[in-house]
Amino acid sequence: MITLAVDCMGGDHGPRVTLEACEKFLATHADAQLLLVGKSEVLAPWVSRPRVTVIEASEVVAMDDPIEIALRKKKDSSMRVAIQQVKDGKADVAVSAGNTGALMAIARYLLKTIEGIDRPAIASQMPQEKGGATTVLDLGANVDCQPEHLLQFAVMGAALVSALQPGGPEPSVGLLNIGEEAIKGNETIKRTAELLRSAGQAGALNFYGNVEGNDIYKGTVDIVVCDGFVGNVALKASEGVAGMIVGGLKHEFKRNIFTKMAAIVAYPVLKALMARMDHRRYNGAALLGLRGLVFKSHGSADARAYEHALNRAYDAARNQLLDKVRGRIVAAAPLLAAATTTASAAEALL
Amino acid sequence: MITLAVDCMGGDHGPRVTLEACEKFLATHADAQLLLVGKSEVLAPWVSRPRVTVIEASEVVAMDDPIEIALRKKKDSSMRVAIQQVKDGKADVAVSAGNTGALMAIARYLLKTIEGIDRPAIASQMPQEKGGATTVLDLGANVDCQPEHLLQFAVMGAALVSALQPGGPEPSVGLLNIGEEAIKGNETIKRTAELLRSAGQAGALNFYGNVEGNDIYKGTVDIVVCDGFVGNVALKASEGVAGMIVGGLKHEFKRNIFTKMAAIVAYPVLKALMARMDHRRYNGAALLGLRGLVFKSHGSADARAYEHALNRAYDAARNQLLDKVRGRIVAAAPLLAAATTTASAAEALL
Repeated sequence: MITLAVDCMGGDHGPRVTLEACEKFLATHADAQLLLVGKSEVLAPWVSRPRVTVIEASEVVAMDDPIEIALRKKKDSSMRVAIQQVKDGKADVAVSAGNTGALMAIARYLLKTIEGIDRPAIASQMPQEKGGATTVLDLGANVDCQPEHLLQFAVMGAALVSALQPGGPEPSVGLLNIGEEAIKGNETIKRTAELLRSAGQAGALNFYGNVEGNDIYKGTVDIVVCDGFVGNVALKASEGVAGMIVGGLKHEFKRNIFTKMAAIVAYPVLKALMARMDHRRYNGAALLGLRGLVFKSHGSADARAYEHALNRAYDAARNQLLDKVRGRIVAAAPLLAAATTTASAAEALL
Repeated sequence: MITLAVDCMGGDHGPRVTLEACEKFLATHADAQLLLVGKSEVLAPWVSRPRVTVIEASEVVAMDDPIEIALRKKKDSSMRVAIQQVKDGKADVAVSAGNTGALMAIARYLLKTIEGIDRPAIASQMPQEKGGATTVLDLGANVDCQPEHLLQFAVMGAALVSALQPGGPEPSVGLLNIGEEAIKGNETIKRTAELLRSAGQAGALNFYGNVEGNDIYKGTVDIVVCDGFVGNVALKASEGVAGMIVGGLKHEFKRNIFTKMAAIVAYPVLKALMARMDHRRYNGAALLGLRGLVFKSHGSADARAYEHALNRAYDAARNQLLDKVRGRIVAAAPLLAAATTTASAAEALL
């Protein structure tokens, strides 16, 4: 039995979306149970449901709460109580659609990082034109990364992909850069490429080399590693373009009676395309590097998207993502330690 | 009369594309003349054309030539000879579709930077969903920017937009970040935001505040400032998404006889959309901060896209972009100097 702790209050839409998704999730996962965390008045109808335990939490972290407020003042928030279930061993994984900064801070405070990992990272999937998905990390948890952090992200990303696609080939890792040539990029990226190359030669990683922004969607590699600032900008710019094109399509098809008729004819085709590229299918980012599993849903997720986040969290728990990350970190420990030592030595010299 | 020096050999397709675009450009710009730079055998048919002067250059910078080769070994390249025309006062602006790194290095070497500018930047336009365009810089010339460089980019970007849209309101500037709140971002970005805010208060800039990746396409501001690494990733990720969606549309419409019929009906609508979003309309990036005007076309540009780059270069020259950049730099000189001094002091303290 896999147990998910769900922060029912988090996200732009709160329980309306999260509980609808939980309903569907339970119907499709017979070997799962849910710890529903939130205000008692909202969760009252769920109290005597099979495979459901209601856990009361009196506070809610707002989407715009500063991290300090979420962490220090709201100690009985649904977000925090959900993560506490993972810490106490009562849940295999926690899921929340709340404020990313607060979620990362609380998860890090309660669960702590795995030995060998300095900073947790946020990993999510983006669609590939050939139909698969590229796992990208970090997407915003770390805005000032050193090469050793990016090496840690690469190792954790490989663990995530292996856990979600068990039995597949060793996933390939690309370093996000502004050109494929080894001489491109800033100093941090050049030093990272050296570290990743060494890790590849030592057999700890399947390192492909540098990739560019468009390679995320081409599907050149399984995993793209970048610092959180760059990853977040790439993600949001991508969402912006996709939104602009979809908005443009709607606008053009609504222009007059002829284009509206064309829309009716083209509708099944457009619907098939939208289904293939539907960002909701990619909802559910993993917070990697913690001593416990936490998944983050997009704040604006609807019930279908939130259900995908629950599914991903369930898959990760069932496939023992945590043990896989730990195992890879242990295997790569000498490399990670060497990278950190070299970095400290380099800093000491400056 | 506006004079453009054209590197006819540069780009993936060379003279086939550049000369076709030159033909159309001449037909639509009666007050322009062209200095066509390239191999004599290619340019022979153009020798006695009105408003055309052929300038022989015996070498060509290849798309994959290292910068050192382009700069030190190929002193008679079409790229270099074209820029030399600007330096010698024989042309108002140079245009090339060649290797970006080589173009920037040669332009910087021959023309030098304007006083007050440490590093030139590459500025280009990206489409907005409401129909206008956002000017983004830097797109890849500088991969390790300090706050004072980003302030310089902001001032130059404002000059570019003012020159290309004369008489419009003072263009607004956004700082690319991973959230709108002032507390977001890495250290460089936080310090940059302070500098831009001071510049705004001093009346040297219309500073909007932080923007996110999707704001480029929303059209939240006229100008988005970022370092070249981030800008390049955002640009290429955007191209990747757009390519994936367009490819997906084609794929879905080709699926069977019914979808092919739907495509015929929907074709005018899709064509209108593509025309609105056509990246060729946005071809032509300005190299800003040099003592002369240079425009860069996408290497893969077709004749229509290259013609847009020629048009943009012509508009910039006619609207005295160079004087406008200089004027703004002079006006902002105390701010720029203070930023640099503060930065040096901060570095000295470390």
